Amino acid sequence: MNAETLTLDLETSLGRFEARLRELVDSDVEFIRLIQDDLVTAGGKRIRPRLVLLASRALGGVPREMELALAVELLHSATLLHDDLVDDAETRRGREAAFRKYGNAVSVLSGDYLLSRVLYLLAETGRLELVRLFADVARQLAEGEVFQFQVAALGEYSKANYERIIAGKTAALMRACTEGVALLADAAPMVREALRRFGYEYGMVFQMRDDYLDLMGDGQVLGKPVGGDVREGKVTLITLHLLERAAEEVGPILARRAAKPGDIARLRELAIATGAAEAVVEAITARAEQAVAALDPLPDSPAKAQLIELARSEVRRVR
Amino acid sequence: MNAETLTLDLETSLGRFEARLRELVDSDVEFIRLIQDDLVTAGGKRIRPRLVLLASRALGGVPREMELALAVELLHSATLLHDDLVDDAETRRGREAAFRKYGNAVSVLSGDYLLSRVLYLLAETGRLELVRLFADVARQLAEGEVFQFQVAALGEYSKANYERIIAGKTAALMRACTEGVALLADAAPMVREALRRFGYEYGMVFQMRDDYLDLMGDGQVLGKPVGGDVREGKVTLITLHLLERAAEEVGPILARRAAKPGDIARLRELAIATGAAEAVVEAITARAEQAVAALDPLPDSPAKAQLIELARSEVRRVR
Repeated sequence: MNAETLTLDLETSLGRFEARLRELVDSDVEFIRLIQDDLVTAGGKRIRPRLVLLASRALGGVPREMELALAVELLHSATLLHDDLVDDAETRRGREAAFRKYGNAVSVLSGDYLLSRVLYLLAETGRLELVRLFADVARQLAEGEVFQFQVAALGEYSKANYERIIAGKTAALMRACTEGVALLADAAPMVREALRRFGYEYGMVFQMRDDYLDLMGDGQVLGKPVGGDVREGKVTLITLHLLERAAEEVGPILARRAAKPGDIARLRELAIATGAAEAVVEAITARAEQAVAALDPLPDSPAKAQLIELARSEVRRVR
Repeated sequence: MNAETLTLDLETSLGRFEARLRELVDSDVEFIRLIQDDLVTAGGKRIRPRLVLLASRALGGVPREMELALAVELLHSATLLHDDLVDDAETRRGREAAFRKYGNAVSVLSGDYLLSRVLYLLAETGRLELVRLFADVARQLAEGEVFQFQVAALGEYSKANYERIIAGKTAALMRACTEGVALLADAAPMVREALRRFGYEYGMVFQMRDDYLDLMGDGQVLGKPVGGDVREGKVTLITLHLLERAAEEVGPILARRAAKPGDIARLRELAIATGAAEAVVEAITARAEQAVAALDPLPDSPAKAQLIELARSEVRRVR
């Protein structure tokens, strides 16, 4: 398969993915249908299914890749529905947060409905090891989210805690995308470890880039105002670096959650001036190269090249 | 096994159940531990694990009964955590609702944590059919809860909708308790169908009794004020019968959610005077006998006798 046929093949598969997704989230209950329309079928970049399909193609194609792609996306969507509530998010994927339209109840329970469909898909793969992998990932997801809440509530900010939070809430599921493929392929331990590490490291890069742009990005490109994390009291890598370099000025801004006009602009200035921004960009770059290096055991292929490109494209977004 | 050794054996197994439950819900994350202490280990009647253990003993004992008992209880606990939020419940099992203490976020996410443990237990049983059964039940649970919300929001009250709601939110999981045992036993289709039907019918009886006592019971015995469903705008079988018999007086009381002093007392009077209460008690009795009849294909045993007694004890609570 060359790069061109890979692209075509991927688009075809993603088309089938969208069709199956709609079928899967359908329900006799009208209120469930409403919320699914709103969230699941609204799109998004389908980054997790893409990871599954690319990893599968890097191994020459594996059985039941579609069920895995659907399961990771639905688990992700369920998390979004439950997080909307937690984050009190004003917008999600540029739309009104689901729970504002239909109430908390329907958000949480529709998330649970999606989780039941994940269970169904796992059974469809016929692989108990996949159930075990998802049990592990779902546990890390929930622990990561609660830990993030705990760190905010108790003010336990540190780089170690930041790593633990994003490992749980993001990298664990990305890891399931690629390790799940190895599992479906009955791949050799070395290959499984390579895909596991790539998924995990890529997930870390993805979240670090997301958090960096939340403060340092362009609000127009992001489709939301910058500084949301600071206003919600979420400490990320950039704020930790800022605190190290300019605590006297940054501390009070974080404490008041950037409530004063100009606070966010000032944090951005300080991030550039103190080198905090550069330090985070370097951390993201190093991590992306770790992701790339993890793939060494895999033979070269257009799919492997696209996985590498995926990791490096995250770096380009912050440079 | 006679009735006495059954009782002993059951208590021993429930003791092991409590110990394993505590291990399972443990987490490195402090906020998860707090909420688990609050809810899961606070007890409750463990009615679902009891159903599993009794059904298992009615088949002479099945492998992995403990994992099934733990999985149904954790799924139930997760539902309670998510429902606290939905119902805005003031108390649950006589304690402060979990979310009031730690915020919505921790309730929802701790529920998700429990769901990840259910997945782990299902993998431990080594039976994909059980994953499939739980996928089906979890779907019905979520659909039942959302449908209840939808019926309340749109005022779509009817006996058919009431049946659909309680089938989803209660009977489906009770059915999984007993059908799950048949599945673990690789039981003959007739036995599986018997246990499936018993669990389902018993679940219906259980919820109908619960809803009946919510209005007609003794607040002291219940440990909460009577009339909670009416005040939350939930229509149950007794209110539907009341509407049939005394719409002019009952309609306005339901519309104002019993906001006037004396409203609940008046509904109770009317339920007796119009025969609405008697009609519901008769429906519960008939359903309990359907549950009992479902067990006909099983050979007589002390465990079968206890299952029958369980169904009939629900009837005694309303007579």
